Amino acid sequence: MRSYPAILSSLFHHRIFSRFRRTISLQSPATVTTPMAATAEDSLRRALADKQSTIDAHGSAIRQLKTSGASKSEIDDAVKALNALKLEKTSIENQLKASISGDANGSAISRDAFRQAVVNTLERRLFYIPSFKIYRGVAGLYDYGPPGCAVKSNVLAFWRQHFVLEEDMLEVDCPCVTPEVVLKASGHVDKFTDLMVKDEKTGNCYRADHLLKDYCKDKLENDLALSADKAAELKHVLAVLDDLSGEQLGAKIKEYGIVAPDTKNPLSDPYPFNLMFQTQIGPSGASTGYMRPETAQGIFVNFKDLYYYNGNKLPFAAAQIGQAFRNEISPRQGLLRVREFTLAEIEHFVDPDDKSHPKYSEVSNLEFLMFPRDEQMSGQSAKRLGLGEAVSKGIVNNQTLAYFIGRVYLFLTQLGIDEERLRFRQHLPNEMAHYAADCWDAEIESSYGWIECVGIADRSAYDLRAHTDKSGVALVAQEKFAEPKEVEKLVITPVKKELGLIFKGNQKMVVEALEAMNEKEALDMKATLETKGEVEFEVCTLEKTVTIKKSMVSISKEKKKEHQRVFTPSVIEPSFGIGRIIYCLYEHSFYMRPSKAGDEQLNVFRFPPLVAPIKCTVFPLVQNQQYEEVAKQISRSLTAAGISNKKDITGTSIGKRYARTDELGVPFAVTVDSTSSVTIRERDSKDQIRVNVDEVAAVIKDVSEGRCTWADILQKYPAHTSASADE
Amino acid sequence: MRSYPAILSSLFHHRIFSRFRRTISLQSPATVTTPMAATAEDSLRRALADKQSTIDAHGSAIRQLKTSGASKSEIDDAVKALNALKLEKTSIENQLKASISGDANGSAISRDAFRQAVVNTLERRLFYIPSFKIYRGVAGLYDYGPPGCAVKSNVLAFWRQHFVLEEDMLEVDCPCVTPEVVLKASGHVDKFTDLMVKDEKTGNCYRADHLLKDYCKDKLENDLALSADKAAELKHVLAVLDDLSGEQLGAKIKEYGIVAPDTKNPLSDPYPFNLMFQTQIGPSGASTGYMRPETAQGIFVNFKDLYYYNGNKLPFAAAQIGQAFRNEISPRQGLLRVREFTLAEIEHFVDPDDKSHPKYSEVSNLEFLMFPRDEQMSGQSAKRLGLGEAVSKGIVNNQTLAYFIGRVYLFLTQLGIDEERLRFRQHLPNEMAHYAADCWDAEIESSYGWIECVGIADRSAYDLRAHTDKSGVALVAQEKFAEPKEVEKLVITPVKKELGLIFKGNQKMVVEALEAMNEKEALDMKATLETKGEVEFEVCTLEKTVTIKKSMVSISKEKKKEHQRVFTPSVIEPSFGIGRIIYCLYEHSFYMRPSKAGDEQLNVFRFPPLVAPIKCTVFPLVQNQQYEEVAKQISRSLTAAGISNKKDITGTSIGKRYARTDELGVPFAVTVDSTSSVTIRERDSKDQIRVNVDEVAAVIKDVSEGRCTWADILQKYPAHTSASADE
Repeated sequence: MRSYPAILSSLFHHRIFSRFRRTISLQSPATVTTPMAATAEDSLRRALADKQSTIDAHGSAIRQLKTSGASKSEIDDAVKALNALKLEKTSIENQLKASISGDANGSAISRDAFRQAVVNTLERRLFYIPSFKIYRGVAGLYDYGPPGCAVKSNVLAFWRQHFVLEEDMLEVDCPCVTPEVVLKASGHVDKFTDLMVKDEKTGNCYRADHLLKDYCKDKLENDLALSADKAAELKHVLAVLDDLSGEQLGAKIKEYGIVAPDTKNPLSDPYPFNLMFQTQIGPSGASTGYMRPETAQGIFVNFKDLYYYNGNKLPFAAAQIGQAFRNEISPRQGLLRVREFTLAEIEHFVDPDDKSHPKYSEVSNLEFLMFPRDEQMSGQSAKRLGLGEAVSKGIVNNQTLAYFIGRVYLFLTQLGIDEERLRFRQHLPNEMAHYAADCWDAEIESSYGWIECVGIADRSAYDLRAHTDKSGVALVAQEKFAEPKEVEKLVITPVKKELGLIFKGNQKMVVEALEAMNEKEALDMKATLETKGEVEFEVCTLEKTVTIKKSMVSISKEKKKEHQRVFTPSVIEPSFGIGRIIYCLYEHSFYMRPSKAGDEQLNVFRFPPLVAPIKCTVFPLVQNQQYEEVAKQISRSLTAAGISNKKDITGTSIGKRYARTDELGVPFAVTVDSTSSVTIRERDSKDQIRVNVDEVAAVIKDVSEGRCTWADILQKYPAHTSASADE
Repeated sequence: MRSYPAILSSLFHHRIFSRFRRTISLQSPATVTTPMAATAEDSLRRALADKQSTIDAHGSAIRQLKTSGASKSEIDDAVKALNALKLEKTSIENQLKASISGDANGSAISRDAFRQAVVNTLERRLFYIPSFKIYRGVAGLYDYGPPGCAVKSNVLAFWRQHFVLEEDMLEVDCPCVTPEVVLKASGHVDKFTDLMVKDEKTGNCYRADHLLKDYCKDKLENDLALSADKAAELKHVLAVLDDLSGEQLGAKIKEYGIVAPDTKNPLSDPYPFNLMFQTQIGPSGASTGYMRPETAQGIFVNFKDLYYYNGNKLPFAAAQIGQAFRNEISPRQGLLRVREFTLAEIEHFVDPDDKSHPKYSEVSNLEFLMFPRDEQMSGQSAKRLGLGEAVSKGIVNNQTLAYFIGRVYLFLTQLGIDEERLRFRQHLPNEMAHYAADCWDAEIESSYGWIECVGIADRSAYDLRAHTDKSGVALVAQEKFAEPKEVEKLVITPVKKELGLIFKGNQKMVVEALEAMNEKEALDMKATLETKGEVEFEVCTLEKTVTIKKSMVSISKEKKKEHQRVFTPSVIEPSFGIGRIIYCLYEHSFYMRPSKAGDEQLNVFRFPPLVAPIKCTVFPLVQNQQYEEVAKQISRSLTAAGISNKKDITGTSIGKRYARTDELGVPFAVTVDSTSSVTIRERDSKDQIRVNVDEVAAVIKDVSEGRCTWADILQKYPAHTSASADE
């Protein structure tokens, strides 16, 4: 029996980019999310070990032959055989190496090279810049340079259009500085931690799980003598790494003899480090504050006002875009794990008894890669699934959750995320807080693997209840009945006097636990008390089971007239890591193609116009005052239409100028080669059309803002072909 | 003589919302920015004092009469005369009260009532919400609720269009968390302070200047017995308040016997409190960071990359929109002085030898209220001035500065700021850092007085030099000469051996000061050394004057061939306090008008469509399924066109529904009273036109996005008049 106060005081919950500690047995069968496709490697490790034993045995045999004075030819034959065995061993070693690198490194090599090409381009063209570079930077902090900043603006503007405007959401904007009491209520002050170890001599800090992970990966990749059993053990450790407790991590670190990587000094036991940036609000030093680790809490604490603003009606959604902060112990993975980032979060408040969604039919026909719990547990992979089917089969918990999954799918693919490399992965039972009804992550595949970019969680009533509890302000909704309803109500009346005698100081906790029973629990208890006179009852807040006697509680059902229903709404929360989405978008948009002369590879970002940092460049074909005047005029008309554009009047060859802007992902280039009409070139196809000067701005605006496609335009305007047309 | 190192180590500089301490004599004639229009009050105070003396004298005379045994009638006459004098005194007192309240309170009463009406509406309609309200809030932190958030988005989108896009600026987005070294270089770690006093018993903190200000104002307003001289002194204190040093503030607090307002306990001496929120970056505790107090530093540290991105060409501008943080000691003035706020900053980098601007002619004909230094010093008021004239007369230092002043004027007035309540005030010499060439603040008049909302400063090379100095990375620009130039260069060679003998440990400072002399200073020194053999030389870094002998330095001019010129660009910085602009906009947009029945006053925000949080509401005239269907259809087409809109299908009277949305500043209301055509009502004129259902979205879009005006639309569509037309 789990009681209500226990729910309130329960574990801090998993949310995008955050983690919480669960306990998992290292001996339990692996609950691995990706199947261990390690059979080939396993048998090679076994064969290698076998071969080594054979060689060892053969070695002793030869030594015995020698001591026993065997003939030279006899010994020579034996040595020959031993050498043959050693050759076989080498061959197995090579196969094993190949198998390991095929598993872990093979595609990793090309993945690393690909990532390097993308990242080089991004840094060279100032999509991003390591922050405070002239002061040697700060790990985990990045600036968006001009094109990156424009991409981010475009993504956020589209997010506002696609979610806030389209769904009539209430957008709010709350401060980053947050007083302690709010984050105490949300659980962050106590639970928002990573486990850290310190170099016992220098005091350098490391994430305990990172060190263990690095150790296991290194062993698996480089230690050929590793037994198959040991290899399986290390793989299991890797699989359950996120779920290990501090004690378990510490024990493994000791067992494997892991030391500080920089100094080889011994390490401290792991201990929790809170990931929030702490500060003081005001000058007195009496008021602790934190930089918010997520934007959601600002919405929850305003629930009452927002509900009123919405005319006291459910469902409604509130949204917030803003900075969030996490003081990572040692940030890795470049732009994916940073100390400050932009979140866009939605909190959709809904009646827990009715999670249908009026616009559900608009997404129920969508079909895309989903990775439900069962497929993960049974070692299968993600599969294409109709959203409607997933709901009707009970795979996705409810319509509203499904509606947001569908809308997130549309959002990401319209941005340019490759739908083949996008999947919605359901949380496994052990990943979810117990109060959560269902959680799905939109994961995007990148060179770092599958990255959680959007979390979509049905968090039930947890957050509003936590703040109700802490603030004393009831964050609830009312449903007024058209006419009063007669309802049978469960009445639980703990007999405080009796309880006080037995439980003394713990009386309050027992009373609360009794009062928090749901109907079934209470009626079960009533039945047991009537038959047996007493019952065992678990009080979560005391972490023990107590004996309740018949005299200690009265449980009955009574009829009452009610005029309204008062309840805590459930919240369905889609939470977007904007920086992660943008980074994955960079990888999905990047490709290389040979220059016209074939002497070099040119970089291109195939951003859709919606996302492109600059929509259009304007080039005079040759340096010439007349053409430059036309270029200026076109640029001015584009600017007036709100279309970001760039003139390039340098004398560089047209091919070079195209290449430069392809690398920024500019979708359209206007080349001025006469004063009456000009050409427009599309980036990916390199198609060119001819358009009158005074129509250019309108054409570019239409195709940039999605009112028509390039294909439409190709049909409408004459194609242009010329020697100078292409690079 | 002021030498270069002294410039670098000079005071932290004045910037929007910030302050720095200057020293000013309390005995000096007042350098008051607003003329003391206090003559009437002064003479009343004098008359009151005179009358009191006369009354006192008369009182003694009567006492003498009594002792000397004068006749009853004689005494009665004298008492009569005394009573007449007392009546005259009361009359003067009343005049004085009226004069004071006319000065300080009279309009203040209506100002306060007006502000209360605006603020009540803003809070009730959730334009803003005190943050973390359910936890009793945190002073100086506010949330933007749904309409406020929409207004802010609109203002920022327009800012991007008006500045970034229109001027081809390089927008960047840097983190808020900033390492100490950056803010040490900028001067914030050492100088970004306010003076604070503590209640010596409770430890409560107060801003020293606020306490002194409150004391002076209270005395001036409520102490009628105050002498004219004392009143003048208190007014002078108020005028120079911002410039007082800690010692001066402390002395005044002691002199006036000011105590802690809450407890009447004695106060500590004033001491500086740094206004930055401090935190730790990473887990080690070894790396101090701050939440940035402004966004500008993120641009300065990226100068090198941005200059390269711009093709190594000047001028160019970089821009940034983002959160900034200031840990105010005790925030007052509601939304105007907050602890976290959005800044939008531009850093325009320019050749110090050429501050012309190519688009200057586009603004030079503008005319608006300017308040140059001379007018302030001579007690005049702001006056309408042509921007071109201000530049040609040397009132505004240069074209680029003037260009931005003009663009800021256009930006603010297009948002809806009343141009009669907007002025550009030039900084007085004592307000500017000595390196600044010229500074102007866009000040907007609100119920709090004239509020600095945008600062536009020519900061010369200060910031780039400070970061060059601290980081060792040269933040400079190059001008390549078409052909090498022969230049005469000044060569200053301090003779270190000689200097060392005399100045020992101070040698380095003297050497630096000598090397930092400009050409005129050096040639003057050379001439003096040649005639007199020695010269007095002020070394700012030593804060003293030393004697330089001929043997200590050689100064000569040499001819050299140079291929390029390397220089530190000047920066012109327009810095926008977005929250302040929005608050002033609320006040300028607010008005009240009687309801149709005349029984109540209704609130209206006259936001231009550009700013309005919602562009359009859609109402079915009566509750009716057909009309509701049409309303839905119109709402959908508006949403698809990106126009924020709101349906109201409640059965409330149409007048009430109009009033509700007028209060949110919604400019247009569509009322569905048939299935073929509908009415569109404009908020301020209450004019209505009739438009076909399928044209509605296009009409609203055009007028919302400024492609046409309401007047244009009135001409094009038939007017609609009906009983239900107005409220």
